[in-house]
Amino acid sequence: MTISYDGTNYSGYQKQPNNPSIQEELEKQLSKINHNKDVSIHASGRTDAKVHALNQKAHFDLDDNIEPEKLRNSLNKMIPGDIYIKDIKVVDKSFHARFNVKEKEYIYKINIGEYSPLEKNYIFQYNHKLNITKMIEAIHYFEGEHDFTSFTTSDNIQESYVRTIFKTDIKEENNIITISFIGNGFMKYMVRNMVGLLIKIGEEKYEPNEVKNVLIKKDRTQASITANPEGLYLKDVRY
Amino acid sequence: MTISYDGTNYSGYQKQPNNPSIQEELEKQLSKINHNKDVSIHASGRTDAKVHALNQKAHFDLDDNIEPEKLRNSLNKMIPGDIYIKDIKVVDKSFHARFNVKEKEYIYKINIGEYSPLEKNYIFQYNHKLNITKMIEAIHYFEGEHDFTSFTTSDNIQESYVRTIFKTDIKEENNIITISFIGNGFMKYMVRNMVGLLIKIGEEKYEPNEVKNVLIKKDRTQASITANPEGLYLKDVRY
Repeated sequence: MTISYDGTNYSGYQKQPNNPSIQEELEKQLSKINHNKDVSIHASGRTDAKVHALNQKAHFDLDDNIEPEKLRNSLNKMIPGDIYIKDIKVVDKSFHARFNVKEKEYIYKINIGEYSPLEKNYIFQYNHKLNITKMIEAIHYFEGEHDFTSFTTSDNIQESYVRTIFKTDIKEENNIITISFIGNGFMKYMVRNMVGLLIKIGEEKYEPNEVKNVLIKKDRTQASITANPEGLYLKDVRY
Repeated sequence: MTISYDGTNYSGYQKQPNNPSIQEELEKQLSKINHNKDVSIHASGRTDAKVHALNQKAHFDLDDNIEPEKLRNSLNKMIPGDIYIKDIKVVDKSFHARFNVKEKEYIYKINIGEYSPLEKNYIFQYNHKLNITKMIEAIHYFEGEHDFTSFTTSDNIQESYVRTIFKTDIKEENNIITISFIGNGFMKYMVRNMVGLLIKIGEEKYEPNEVKNVLIKKDRTQASITANPEGLYLKDVRY
């Protein structure tokens, strides 16, 4: 299924005790449809607290064969209004929403104009000028296959920190900067840490090639600048 | 002062017991600046619960002369993030933010595309097609000086129900319809009731000249279709 959600009032996608999560809301309602038997939802990956999704993808199994469009309509009536199921399709038994991911796209929005109280949960309110030319020069250093150790968190232990970024983009319209990353995988805080460094470069605190310098260090304690969650959107997941 | 706010979590602009309001938040903080002496804020008018403002205007008196930009910065640090003071200017003693209004502009946003969980508090999620050509034809009947009795609520007692609408506009972009009304004054629920009828006309339940028919009735019980509050924005107030 394809899910869109406003992450503002959630502790993140993933289920956790005593905190509201997208996964819990969906599993709770799906299990009702599944004769009150537990349903486990497997998403393409987690999103952090306050992070949004335009097209998160997830798979699950039900006991009965329910017509997808009927299931989608029922589920949309049961879940809170800040979560929405855009599409449900029957997939092959072998399909896994996480393991089969080919590429993911994240976007990050920054307001470099006046503070906007109506968008404070949807666009990072930076509210100062940034040197976009330098940011555009810098973001290209992220493209290709790199060890992204320096851009994850120090508590993130992985088998490999190597990921490939296929495409990046930065554009500005009406004082809103939209940064896009398309890659084969993103680790915890990786997009927000990349954006954090890009902002420092936009502030002219570092030169664009600082991206290269930080990548080379391969040091998990390097990623000290994590951009706010509310500007981040999981835009697409492709298989 | 010029105020912008996200009305989602408020019972409206106006102060009321036991319910959060924009006025209360502002007066509470302004009185702190005013040596803990009460400050009364006079706005251009009320906005209903969940209705937003891009440029609400209000005046108030303080005991001291405080440099406007300094006052604005202090106040913005004290008030919640969903309210923002865009501008403060010193005005003549004779100025009144409500009585001196020359014209007001309201806009109303309708999503005729797919449901958007991220915009549910900011754009009315109608999520069906509407006949915009008929709505454009219909909205022109509101222009000019009319008795708007039929478009206010039955509990609204006024000396005169006559108001003038100077200009209207409807445009559509990416499945978002934006309706605009500029007039010399708007009564309680008036914009939402006008939009409610326009939606019925867009649904082809009535012909565009139904606007004329309802205006002629001058009956406060006629205004039965009140569009949702979350799509409404007080866009501007001019003096």
